[in-house]
Amino acid sequence: MPVEWSSSPPELLIRLDRDARSPLRDQLEGAVRDAIRDGRLAPGERLPSSRALAAQLGVARGVVTECYAQLHAEGYLRSQRGAATWVADAGAASAEVVARPAPAVGPWQVDLRPGIPDLDSFPRVEWARCLRQVLREAPNAVLGYAGAEGVPELREVLAAYLSRVRSARAAPEHLVVTAGFAQGLQLVLQALAARGLTTLAVEDPGDRDSHALAADLGLRVLPVPVDRDGIDVEALASTSAGAVLVTPAHQSPTGVLLGAERRRELAQWARSRGATILEDDYDAEFRYDDQPVGALQGLAPDHVVLLGSVSKSLAPAVRLGWALCPPDLAPDVAGRRERADRGSPVLDQLALARLVRDGRYDRHLRRMRARYAARRRVLVDALHDHVPGVEVSGLAAGFHLVVTLPTARGEQEIVDAAAARSVGLHAMGRYRAADGDGTARLVLGFGNVRTSGVPDAVARIADLLR
Amino acid sequence: MPVEWSSSPPELLIRLDRDARSPLRDQLEGAVRDAIRDGRLAPGERLPSSRALAAQLGVARGVVTECYAQLHAEGYLRSQRGAATWVADAGAASAEVVARPAPAVGPWQVDLRPGIPDLDSFPRVEWARCLRQVLREAPNAVLGYAGAEGVPELREVLAAYLSRVRSARAAPEHLVVTAGFAQGLQLVLQALAARGLTTLAVEDPGDRDSHALAADLGLRVLPVPVDRDGIDVEALASTSAGAVLVTPAHQSPTGVLLGAERRRELAQWARSRGATILEDDYDAEFRYDDQPVGALQGLAPDHVVLLGSVSKSLAPAVRLGWALCPPDLAPDVAGRRERADRGSPVLDQLALARLVRDGRYDRHLRRMRARYAARRRVLVDALHDHVPGVEVSGLAAGFHLVVTLPTARGEQEIVDAAAARSVGLHAMGRYRAADGDGTARLVLGFGNVRTSGVPDAVARIADLLR
Repeated sequence: MPVEWSSSPPELLIRLDRDARSPLRDQLEGAVRDAIRDGRLAPGERLPSSRALAAQLGVARGVVTECYAQLHAEGYLRSQRGAATWVADAGAASAEVVARPAPAVGPWQVDLRPGIPDLDSFPRVEWARCLRQVLREAPNAVLGYAGAEGVPELREVLAAYLSRVRSARAAPEHLVVTAGFAQGLQLVLQALAARGLTTLAVEDPGDRDSHALAADLGLRVLPVPVDRDGIDVEALASTSAGAVLVTPAHQSPTGVLLGAERRRELAQWARSRGATILEDDYDAEFRYDDQPVGALQGLAPDHVVLLGSVSKSLAPAVRLGWALCPPDLAPDVAGRRERADRGSPVLDQLALARLVRDGRYDRHLRRMRARYAARRRVLVDALHDHVPGVEVSGLAAGFHLVVTLPTARGEQEIVDAAAARSVGLHAMGRYRAADGDGTARLVLGFGNVRTSGVPDAVARIADLLR
Repeated sequence: MPVEWSSSPPELLIRLDRDARSPLRDQLEGAVRDAIRDGRLAPGERLPSSRALAAQLGVARGVVTECYAQLHAEGYLRSQRGAATWVADAGAASAEVVARPAPAVGPWQVDLRPGIPDLDSFPRVEWARCLRQVLREAPNAVLGYAGAEGVPELREVLAAYLSRVRSARAAPEHLVVTAGFAQGLQLVLQALAARGLTTLAVEDPGDRDSHALAADLGLRVLPVPVDRDGIDVEALASTSAGAVLVTPAHQSPTGVLLGAERRRELAQWARSRGATILEDDYDAEFRYDDQPVGALQGLAPDHVVLLGSVSKSLAPAVRLGWALCPPDLAPDVAGRRERADRGSPVLDQLALARLVRDGRYDRHLRRMRARYAARRRVLVDALHDHVPGVEVSGLAAGFHLVVTLPTARGEQEIVDAAAARSVGLHAMGRYRAADGDGTARLVLGFGNVRTSGVPDAVARIADLLR
C-alpha cells in the first residue's frame, strides 16, 4: 500500500505492509526515521498534520501522533503546541541524535550481544510526563532522606504489580527497592552470608557476572547442570549449597522454562533444607507463545527472594529494581541498603510508581512484547534462510535465543570473526563453567537492533555459521 | 511598606521590609505561602498578575515571577500559559502539599537537627527543565549501561566546577560519580583496605555515622581531638593511622575552619607517611563571612580524596555525589562502583550536568547562601535575646551552629525536654568519642526551618537553655 505525502509537505513514499508482522506504528516510525537519517526529509521540512497523514495512510490518528511524539522525544522532529511538525535542525541540540551512526552501545555496527533492550523504544514521553507530575506534586518533605527500603508509593504499586502479573505473594513491607539486579543480589547475598551461608549453587550454563559477584563476597560458587527442564534439582540436592540462584521464567542463557515438576521439587528442597532460592526474574515480562508462567516465589514465599529490575522492561540507565524478600530477611536487606548508599533517588522512584499506577508501564510492556515478537520472527526466518540445518532454541520469552550450529566448530573463532566484521554476539562457552560437548552454540540478542536491519545482520555473518 | 492587593483579587496585606536581612523574594514567597496556609488566600482565588503586583510592591517583576514559579512548583498555585494565576485547589493533587503541617522530615514541629538543607527551596522548576531537556535531546545509546564512573558530561562539568569553586586539582578521569557521600566514603575505604589500610583516624568530635561505616568495613577507627584550628595534626602523627577523615572547610560539628598551618602540616603528614586524607566537603558551598577557603585537595592531589554531594546543595533525595581521587586510586574506586550497583541513573546525571553547565546550580547556591545567612542571623539574634550569656560558635559556613550554655548542664536532658515539646536538636555528646569537659553544648541546624518561624522556635525551648 504505497502512499505519497500530500501537497506542499515533502515528497516521500511511505510503505505500510498490513500483512507484515511488525505493527503499523513501528513501520511508520521506522520509515520516517529512516527518511530523516537518509536526508530524504531535510531539516526544517514540514510534515503533514497527524490527521492528514492518518487519513492518507488509512490508519488511526493515534498511530501517527504516537509516532510523531516518539520521534519528537528522540530529537528527530520539533513542533509547536497546536501547530505544525517539522524535521529538527541537524545543527540544533538534536544534532547528536540525528548524526549518531547507530543506537549500538558498544563499537558494534550490529550488536547481537544479549542483555540490552530496545533503547530506541524507551518511553521518553511518558517518563518525562511522570517526572514532571512528580516534581509538581510531591510534598517538600520527600526531598530529604527517605527510608532506604524505598518510598511507600513505589513499594505499594510494585507489590500490587508483582502479585497481579507475576503471581507473587507480595506485600509492600517485604519489598526493598534496589539500584538494579546486581545491587539486589549483592545485598541479599551479604545478608545470607551474615546468617552463615557459605556456598551458593548456580546454573551451568548461567550468568557468570553474578557468579563473580558472589565469589567476590567470599562465597563458594557451585555450578549445577541445566537440562531441557531447567536446573537439575537432584544434582542440586546432592550438594551442600544453602542457596541457589536460578532463572526459572527463561533460563539465562539457554532459554528453557523451569518445568512444573522441577518447581515443586525446588521449593521442596528449599523447605526441607531451610535454604534460600534467589529468583532472577530478568525478562519475565516478555513471554510470547505460551501463557505467562508465574514466579517461583508464589510457591514458597518464605524461601524465595524475587529479584527484578526495569533494566530490561524500560532501560538499564534508569537504575531501579526490587528485591521481594521472605519476611524475616527484608529488614536486614533494607538495613544493608541504608548503609550502602541511603537508597535510590526519590523522584525517580515516584516517577516509576506513577508510570505503573497509571497503567503506562503495562501499556509499554504490551507494545514491546509485540515489537520483540515480530523481530524474533524475522531473526528466526533469516537464520533458517541463511543457515540450512541450524537449530534455534530458547525462543519462548525475552529477547535472546540460542543458535546450535549444524557442525561442530570452535565457538570463539566465530565470535572473533564476527567481531572483525563489527557484529557482536556471544559464545555459549562464555556461560559454561566446564567445557562443552563439542557442539557449537551461540547466544544472539535481538533487543537493541532495528527489526529492518536484522536480515542484513544475519547475512553479514551467515557464512560463519554454516 | 504595607501594600494592599489591587481591585478584584483578594484583599491581602503584603509586608516587605527593605531593611530586613532576608531577600525581598524570600519575604514575598513566605508571605504568600503563609496566606495560603492560613486560609487567608482561599483555593480558587485569583492572584494579581506578576506585572501588577511588582508595580504595587515596587519590586522587579522577576521577583514576583520567581516567587510564583516556586509556589507553583510546590503546588500552592496553579496557572495557565499566558493566563492568570490562582490558588490551587486543596482537593486536587496539591492537597498533600497544602495540607501537610510543616516541612519537617521527622515527627518534629520544629526540626533544628543539623544535616538537612531547606527542602522548600529545592529548585523544582530548574530541575524539571533540565530533565525535560535531557529526555528530549540525549541520544538513545546513553540509555544502556553507562560506565559506572559516571557519564562524561557530568564528570567534565564537575571537574570544572571543583577547580573553579573549590580550587581543587580536578580532571574528569579522576572523578567517580557516587550515590552520595556515604557510598563514596565506603567505596574509597574498601579500595584503601584492599591496599592494606587497617586504621582510619577521625575527628573527635565528628560524624559518628561515618565512623560506624568504617568500623563495619573492619577498619579500626581512631578518634583524634579537634581544637579551634581543626584536627590536631601532631596527635594524628603520633598514631599509626594510614588515612584520616576530615572536614576542613567547616568542621562537623564544631564549625571551625582547618587553619592554614594545619593544612600544610596535614598535607605533609600524608606525603611523608604515604597516607590518604579523605576530605568531606559537605557544606563548603555556604560560607558567609570570610573568603571561601579552597579544598585541601588542591594542596596534595596525590594524597587527598575529595568527597562531595548535592545532598546539602540541592536535596538528599537526588542521591548524587562524587569522589575526586588520586590518579592511582580512581580506577579501583570506579571498579568497585561497577560491582556495587553499575553506577548512578544516567538521566539524573545528565540533568545535573546541565544544571551546572547552564549556571543554574551556581545561581541556586547564591540564592541559598543569602537565605541561610539571613536565617542564621535571625537564629543568633533570637538566641542572644532569649538566653543571656549564651555562646554561639561555628558560624562561618553551612547551616548549623554550636550553642555553649552559660552553666554546666546535662545535654541529653535538654534534648529530651525539647523533644517532648516536639523540637528536634542534637547534643554535642552525640558526636564525641569520649566524655566531654562538663560544659553543655548543643548543635542546632537551621537548614530546614522557615526563617519566620525561627524566633518562635527558640522561644519554645529558651527556658531549657538558660
